Amino acid sequence: MFRTNTCGELRLADAGKKVTLAGWVQRVRKMGGMTFLDLRDRYGITQVVFEQTSDSALNEAANHLGREYVVQVTGTVAERESKNAKNPTGDIEIIADSLRVLNPSEVPPFTIEDESDGGDDLRMKFRYLDLRRNPVRRNLELRHRMTMETRRYLDSKGFLEIETPMLVGSTPEGARDFVVPSRMNPGQFYALPQSPQTLKQLLMVSGMDRYFQIVKCFRDEDLRADRQPEFTQIDCEMSFIEQNDVLELFEGMAKHLFKEIRGIELTEPFIRMPWADAMKYYGSDKPDLRFGMKFVEVDDILKGHGFSVFDNAAYIGGIVAKGAAGYTRKQLDALTDFVKRPQIGAKGLVYARVAEDGSVKSSVDKFYDQETLKALAAKMQAEPGDLILIMSGDDVMRTRKQLCELRLEMGRQLGLRDKNKFACLWVVDFPMFEWSDEEQRLMAMHHPFTHPKDEDIPLLDTDPAAVRADAYDMVINGVEVGGGSIRIHDAALQAKMFEILGFTPEKAQEQFGFLMNAFKYGAPPHGGLAYGLDRWVSLFAGLDSIRDCIAFPKNNSGRDVMLDAPAALDQKQLDELCLELAPEKEEK
Amino acid sequence: MFRTNTCGELRLADAGKKVTLAGWVQRVRKMGGMTFLDLRDRYGITQVVFEQTSDSALNEAANHLGREYVVQVTGTVAERESKNAKNPTGDIEIIADSLRVLNPSEVPPFTIEDESDGGDDLRMKFRYLDLRRNPVRRNLELRHRMTMETRRYLDSKGFLEIETPMLVGSTPEGARDFVVPSRMNPGQFYALPQSPQTLKQLLMVSGMDRYFQIVKCFRDEDLRADRQPEFTQIDCEMSFIEQNDVLELFEGMAKHLFKEIRGIELTEPFIRMPWADAMKYYGSDKPDLRFGMKFVEVDDILKGHGFSVFDNAAYIGGIVAKGAAGYTRKQLDALTDFVKRPQIGAKGLVYARVAEDGSVKSSVDKFYDQETLKALAAKMQAEPGDLILIMSGDDVMRTRKQLCELRLEMGRQLGLRDKNKFACLWVVDFPMFEWSDEEQRLMAMHHPFTHPKDEDIPLLDTDPAAVRADAYDMVINGVEVGGGSIRIHDAALQAKMFEILGFTPEKAQEQFGFLMNAFKYGAPPHGGLAYGLDRWVSLFAGLDSIRDCIAFPKNNSGRDVMLDAPAALDQKQLDELCLELAPEKEEK
Repeated sequence: MFRTNTCGELRLADAGKKVTLAGWVQRVRKMGGMTFLDLRDRYGITQVVFEQTSDSALNEAANHLGREYVVQVTGTVAERESKNAKNPTGDIEIIADSLRVLNPSEVPPFTIEDESDGGDDLRMKFRYLDLRRNPVRRNLELRHRMTMETRRYLDSKGFLEIETPMLVGSTPEGARDFVVPSRMNPGQFYALPQSPQTLKQLLMVSGMDRYFQIVKCFRDEDLRADRQPEFTQIDCEMSFIEQNDVLELFEGMAKHLFKEIRGIELTEPFIRMPWADAMKYYGSDKPDLRFGMKFVEVDDILKGHGFSVFDNAAYIGGIVAKGAAGYTRKQLDALTDFVKRPQIGAKGLVYARVAEDGSVKSSVDKFYDQETLKALAAKMQAEPGDLILIMSGDDVMRTRKQLCELRLEMGRQLGLRDKNKFACLWVVDFPMFEWSDEEQRLMAMHHPFTHPKDEDIPLLDTDPAAVRADAYDMVINGVEVGGGSIRIHDAALQAKMFEILGFTPEKAQEQFGFLMNAFKYGAPPHGGLAYGLDRWVSLFAGLDSIRDCIAFPKNNSGRDVMLDAPAALDQKQLDELCLELAPEKEEK
Repeated sequence: MFRTNTCGELRLADAGKKVTLAGWVQRVRKMGGMTFLDLRDRYGITQVVFEQTSDSALNEAANHLGREYVVQVTGTVAERESKNAKNPTGDIEIIADSLRVLNPSEVPPFTIEDESDGGDDLRMKFRYLDLRRNPVRRNLELRHRMTMETRRYLDSKGFLEIETPMLVGSTPEGARDFVVPSRMNPGQFYALPQSPQTLKQLLMVSGMDRYFQIVKCFRDEDLRADRQPEFTQIDCEMSFIEQNDVLELFEGMAKHLFKEIRGIELTEPFIRMPWADAMKYYGSDKPDLRFGMKFVEVDDILKGHGFSVFDNAAYIGGIVAKGAAGYTRKQLDALTDFVKRPQIGAKGLVYARVAEDGSVKSSVDKFYDQETLKALAAKMQAEPGDLILIMSGDDVMRTRKQLCELRLEMGRQLGLRDKNKFACLWVVDFPMFEWSDEEQRLMAMHHPFTHPKDEDIPLLDTDPAAVRADAYDMVINGVEVGGGSIRIHDAALQAKMFEILGFTPEKAQEQFGFLMNAFKYGAPPHGGLAYGLDRWVSLFAGLDSIRDCIAFPKNNSGRDVMLDAPAALDQKQLDELCLELAPEKEEK
């Protein structure tokens, strides 16, 4: 037996016990005739003492231990003289009487501490050492607990976890697929699933009633900080339900997770905000409701005063930053620069400070008299000491999105985006379609199987762009953690949908034939949703990037720098797959 | 709301309640003025009655329902006159007062009954309909419960489920990889993991202490009935353990699953049978211990009597089939044909019947006197009424394997392989190496990281072929459900292992460099195992093939006939991946 106890479990009540521990050398300190070893494992750190007077050879051996050596120590638990209240094992220490080096270690390339001196690249290359650090390990522990609790909740609600295949067919619609050449079917390829969407719908046709799966999905997209080529979804689908059933059940799951994982009891129902309101008041389909700063549209007040920027704008709206009237000119210039950055692309920013006496001082005073500015402050419910920030533009939606960026930045600057506070809502009633300039046609905003709202079905013939869908997103702190929809189960409605999306019946059959055929044999009403597990764990862990809740993530070029993958194949492997590398790329 | 209850939950106590059910039409029977509808969902079948006298239009509508229509029925729960004790809802029926067709259905291509009239090909093409059948659905429910209980057990033992990547590097050693071309790294490929073996070892280096994952793995091998290109593993690894710790913990898991899933309490410790004994007594490293028929070696008795087949044999051994002395000549000839089939390849079979008076009558009586035959019967503990079956050959191991096939066939014929009886054991002390005629060198039987038994380490220098490993398999009813080993954590021992396996240090570095480098930084002693989930579920479900516990399996050509995958790619996709199809294969 390698150990009687872990390095995290011994307490004062264990004093006097003979124990054996095993773990890694966190550090060794020599103090007079004593050597102190901090022994670490996943469960904690226990202090081990080697006394020179009682066994000088043993003490000498301890002095030669290096950082990250793997050792086994036997000794007696004793009460510490100077206790460490910060460490759960801090009341005791082990008086060692034997020491065995199980494995030595080279000096690690960075320190195994909460705040490491390793840069990102080094940490990723030696990820197995990075994972020894408490903050990274804790993220994986959190992830484990979240998936356990998710499964426990869904199982208690009658959901079956059913594995769908990883080697499926490629669908040209949607994002780019990763593909897998088939050796047994030369010239043909599998695709890795972007999501089990169609398969879970088939499971509803098969009467599985309630399905879920925590499953890897794949998208071959150019990567950003919060994207990975492979990611994990909590994928769910239910039959014989309406939108409200889905929202209630999964709101219950979110509350269960908040309670079990974060110890937060959310008692209020989640707000259900129509997409149109989310855009109007927050300029985003995933508003961060940890703070207010709701948009106020002020065209009525600010137009017609000779300020041509506003007079010609299609949209004028603003936010009130409470108590920020003290912002300096320099701070305000920085905000202007912020909204003018190419990523945001606004032309500028108008501000107005509300003084203690109620007077309003703006950056466009020469166009507006005090009466108008006071009317502005009144409409925006700005009070003395507040800062008003106004943006305008000739494209309503684009300007709202710019104002959204400003709102989020002000929320950040004013400390209103506390990572330990959570604001959850459902965004509902998404538009069914969005216009694609590239394709010059309406595209499905969610996917072509999304059910339109019953009351909007007549609009499919007259004004399809105005049709709203039974589609919904769960948003927490400005992050879309999940989303889904009620699906069409009626063949005639599905055919009409394909027609609006510009599919010929032949093309629809070619791309979605297997699903449409299945629907001929008694498809039940159904719907569901999918959560991005990586994002949700990041949110619970308070991380800025999803990478630190993934054991072995890939970098922005899709590379695993630890494994050094992808890599060239042996010619033999290519031959077996009947593949050749295209000549023009072989130089690369 | 689509339903107040499922089709499986109403009981006599619900009589008088107004309910709404939804589901599929299992069948409709018209009897006089009544129409009976069996309404089915995942949870059961409920009988619905439409009375012509009370609502003739409604009754007429019910008469027009086809099989597999999806309908919603509202009515009142009533006690049935003629109850059906076989159906949990058989005490009640619903007196319908409204009926709504949610979706019609074409006539399904095969019957949705426990015993379907659909052949394998049709069932696979319309798998979504096949899954509506009780026996198939129950397999998926069993699979769900097994994974839930596996996770619950491992979580309770401190294991963390950690997801390892699906896009990894290709390793030329081992089985053939499925590969994934990288668009962002042209000319380079990821591989899909054959198992997370090296990654879980890295997680041990990272101090995760106890890891598990229920995870898809991939092998591009030619397929057999019990192989799928993608399969699911319960993959586990632990640190600071010895072999006994692993066996005890996972024996506990098996017992937990037997109890929770099958209601079987296994109280005895699993037998731990050395590999050498398994081969000697059962001719197999996965003996089926539901029945005896242990091999008895009888060279000492049967050699030297002038029967040249035996006199020249390297091995003579037999089994006793209890009570099978009545086997006819025809049955015995069939057994001889059985062992002579090319898959088994034996030259023949000698039999001897023990008569009621204790006399022995054999097929080789002209070589053996009664005294010798009685000595044979005595050594084999054959009793009156028993049948002795003897095989011989010039290759000991090959003959044992042939005798194993005969033993299993006799077990089958005598009804000793009851699918509801379970015999579990550990096979331990596997050989470290096996000789490869193809490669003309020793190969690792398990993998190159397997730890040799401590007491055999000296043999590495003198007689490597005799070295036994700390490797173990869990065997249930002749099926290897899982296996694993203690891993080498010592760099010098690992180097010696590579040397014996014929790796130059450079080649070892090239293929396993990332793992060997990791081991320089303090690898703990560790080991683990992996279970084949598909096989284990099949065993619990009493299935002959793993396919029926997989929602969407592939056929023997690796095709998903429902999705029609794999398939040709668009040229655009090939171009993006910088790939060309090899010309000689393009005609295919």
